[in-house]
Amino acid sequence: MEKKAVVVLSGGMDSASLLYWAKANYKTVSAISINYGQRHSKELDCARTLCGLTDVEYDVVDLSSIKSLLKGNALTDNIEVPEGHYESSSMKLTVVPNRNMLLLSVALCSACVKDADVVLYGAHFGDHAIYPDCRKEFVEALDKASRLCWYKEIKIVAPFVDKTKTDIARLGTELGVQFEHTWSCYKGEEKHCGKCGTCVERIEAFSDSGIEDITEYAE
Amino acid sequence: MEKKAVVVLSGGMDSASLLYWAKANYKTVSAISINYGQRHSKELDCARTLCGLTDVEYDVVDLSSIKSLLKGNALTDNIEVPEGHYESSSMKLTVVPNRNMLLLSVALCSACVKDADVVLYGAHFGDHAIYPDCRKEFVEALDKASRLCWYKEIKIVAPFVDKTKTDIARLGTELGVQFEHTWSCYKGEEKHCGKCGTCVERIEAFSDSGIEDITEYAE
Repeated sequence: MEKKAVVVLSGGMDSASLLYWAKANYKTVSAISINYGQRHSKELDCARTLCGLTDVEYDVVDLSSIKSLLKGNALTDNIEVPEGHYESSSMKLTVVPNRNMLLLSVALCSACVKDADVVLYGAHFGDHAIYPDCRKEFVEALDKASRLCWYKEIKIVAPFVDKTKTDIARLGTELGVQFEHTWSCYKGEEKHCGKCGTCVERIEAFSDSGIEDITEYAE
Repeated sequence: MEKKAVVVLSGGMDSASLLYWAKANYKTVSAISINYGQRHSKELDCARTLCGLTDVEYDVVDLSSIKSLLKGNALTDNIEVPEGHYESSSMKLTVVPNRNMLLLSVALCSACVKDADVVLYGAHFGDHAIYPDCRKEFVEALDKASRLCWYKEIKIVAPFVDKTKTDIARLGTELGVQFEHTWSCYKGEEKHCGKCGTCVERIEAFSDSGIEDITEYAE
């Protein structure tokens, strides 16, 4: 068992499951979230709750000034969040350019300071179609850079990179993840909208895995 | 000639020379600086002046909240800046963990949005002894990740990675860099202190290259 892991935690289903997986596989776990100017903070509220439930040290880093660089993007800009299936081309509007290298870089800063051995990253197979920086090749390349960036080798590990979201719903359930404290919807209203790409994906993951979906949807 | 370059600009001698080199080698050049909670803003003031002189579009991104993660570091924390030669082990105090991956990640976000072809990075040979993320192997590994992070291949190029600071002083002079508008000193007082590692390196670079050093030093 490796000693110390830093989990990149968004507060969604995947990184919540990763947090519980980390607790089962590492001696010491901490988590980090980045505020990159998301339109809502529901995910970050969930991330904090999950860290409380798992008794994990939690940091949030405010990178919201990056927003000025990220124009034309539905997650940080004033563009309507597209509805429909996750893999449709309109979903490209939800891609924050190079977001994941940025998140992982910040997590690596934290890992250097905490003398951690590994940064855990929740990219999964279903992300590949739309997000180039969720692909295995990207993770492998960044892992190589990560091992060279500091006086000690720090790895980047993405244990779900070959898993579907359905696999993750099953695994998370086995690990005891309280999915009611996770947030997926891009819109960030009172309830999950049930219509945006990530809501559609969430609904499918629970349905396909045969796990009861206790999420409250607007419709 | 490739079309568009984004220069990571600190306002020091190396990245100033890189900016002028970029102007000579790319059709469109923009520059980006990151405020990561440095103890002083002299470098950033110089960066802005240099962009005005070269007529280059300039962005500053405020990542100063990262400071809370970076404890025990002389550049961002309240530790005395060590004096003496750049390669001495006390200079390790001036290393911001994983700083350069962070800077390059932000520059890559900008490059994605600007549809740029390359991010230019001013790491040079003299940095290798102390900064792991200035080594050629690191640049090569991050370049691979960079080419995979977005829908188009964006390269990371470090044209000075095999050059000494003396080479850079010569090259910058040929390119017309106004070195009076560059800042090296870690202390950020009215004049360069002339004693800290980066001042010692600056003095040596001018002296070894036979170029007149017009910097005003405190002593």
